[in-house]
Amino acid sequence: MTLETLSTNKAYGGVQGVYRHQSRETGTAMTFAVFVPEHEPGERLPVLFYLSGLTCTHANVMEKGEYRAACAAEKIVFVAPDTSPRGEEVPDDAEGKYDFGLGAGFYVDATQPPFDRHYRMRSYVEQELPELIAAKFPVDMARQGITGHSMGGHGALTIALRNPSRFRSVSAFAPIVAPSQVPWGQKALAGYLGDDKSAWAEYDAVALIESGASLPNLLVDQGAADNFLEQELKTHLLEDACAKAGLDATIRMQPGYDHSYYFISTFMGEHVRWHAQRLRN
Amino acid sequence: MTLETLSTNKAYGGVQGVYRHQSRETGTAMTFAVFVPEHEPGERLPVLFYLSGLTCTHANVMEKGEYRAACAAEKIVFVAPDTSPRGEEVPDDAEGKYDFGLGAGFYVDATQPPFDRHYRMRSYVEQELPELIAAKFPVDMARQGITGHSMGGHGALTIALRNPSRFRSVSAFAPIVAPSQVPWGQKALAGYLGDDKSAWAEYDAVALIESGASLPNLLVDQGAADNFLEQELKTHLLEDACAKAGLDATIRMQPGYDHSYYFISTFMGEHVRWHAQRLRN
Repeated sequence: MTLETLSTNKAYGGVQGVYRHQSRETGTAMTFAVFVPEHEPGERLPVLFYLSGLTCTHANVMEKGEYRAACAAEKIVFVAPDTSPRGEEVPDDAEGKYDFGLGAGFYVDATQPPFDRHYRMRSYVEQELPELIAAKFPVDMARQGITGHSMGGHGALTIALRNPSRFRSVSAFAPIVAPSQVPWGQKALAGYLGDDKSAWAEYDAVALIESGASLPNLLVDQGAADNFLEQELKTHLLEDACAKAGLDATIRMQPGYDHSYYFISTFMGEHVRWHAQRLRN
Repeated sequence: MTLETLSTNKAYGGVQGVYRHQSRETGTAMTFAVFVPEHEPGERLPVLFYLSGLTCTHANVMEKGEYRAACAAEKIVFVAPDTSPRGEEVPDDAEGKYDFGLGAGFYVDATQPPFDRHYRMRSYVEQELPELIAAKFPVDMARQGITGHSMGGHGALTIALRNPSRFRSVSAFAPIVAPSQVPWGQKALAGYLGDDKSAWAEYDAVALIESGASLPNLLVDQGAADNFLEQELKTHLLEDACAKAGLDATIRMQPGYDHSYYFISTFMGEHVRWHAQRLRN
């Protein structure tokens, strides 16, 4: 487990770093960002994973997410991985569109060639990255939370639903909640997993909840002026599923907010504090 | 005074906008960013101008500056102009370097051809932009503050020193304090103003203070690990000049911080609140 440090910058008393390693899962170099707040020597802090949306790398939330103020105040380590494998050897969308292939890994382990070789973002985020974070950063893996935006909200929800004992807190910004039922998700799941929809269910938050999967808790913010709400996000499907299943979920429509980092950054501090409350010893 | 709206995004309850207009000073289209917090109909808010550093546009601080949280809480309008005229007709550095020409207007009115035609950033920021802001946004021009980073810190200091009654509050992040004495400034001032150094003094904060110019107050934060500190920024010259002149100045060295927006964003909230205290009715 060799970790290359690409950059570190002092921020809010802590260190914002960018790191790269050779991933066993994706077979590529993977880059991720970690913010470590100021802390005592030997102290181990709770960790919040943030999964990004379509087209993003680790850098978008690092530059625009405005999480460091709250993470420094609450002493939370913030981890932001990339959204797909990258490199010349990694196959991309046949038409070069933004919603499949590079920057659009959808947090699945692909089974369809040619994507199955490198697109292993589920195993990367569920297994390999946490092992690396646990080994190399001052974190307490008994206190993990997860969040994400859009495609990354889908990632956060599905990873948490499949690993109910791993996370103490789960949240999302404008998540894709039912990829099997929307164009972005249908294209991605068919492309990575094939046309047999039975293979899709474990990557569909609403389907997982309907099958009995559970979450410890859930906070979702969704902009009411989000251009993708009606066709791609369909937040009401998550509300319905959570209500039927009796899950502890707070799902809020935020009037006037769109899908951008202006929306995310507005509610980021509140999400970090919400996680912090649930990640205390 | 026609203003074109390029984008608006709701953020922290207010509106982050990007606007473009045809500038009479630069003879080009100029783009700037304005954040207007939520406010009562008819209410006019204090305004804080932020001048950016080398290579930046209006967008850098808008995306990475983390000012909206504090501006929303304190009800401050935040204005971020570009750092130079732009366009195919605008002459650039002969060698295409980052420290002169496009992105490097140094907030001067150039007198040397071919730069004198478009490089009129002093008059743009001192005269034209405030007129536009006063006419088009809900601001109280009796309550203005100014700040900036690096080259923009130089801009903020020199504009405030030349207009002592206009601003109630002045601050800077890692400013160039004595451009006549450092490589960045010597190149820019010679290129825009010619070799006669008597023309440089009104664009040199330390020289202005030594000539008796005054400021209402001053807050400066400077990263002690800033790579440009020793050769280009020379904060101690400002400390000496303020001390000799008996100015009300707080100049802080911040251990471990560099020249980046990770540094700026860390102290931005504090600067906004510092201005807000001085901009109250």
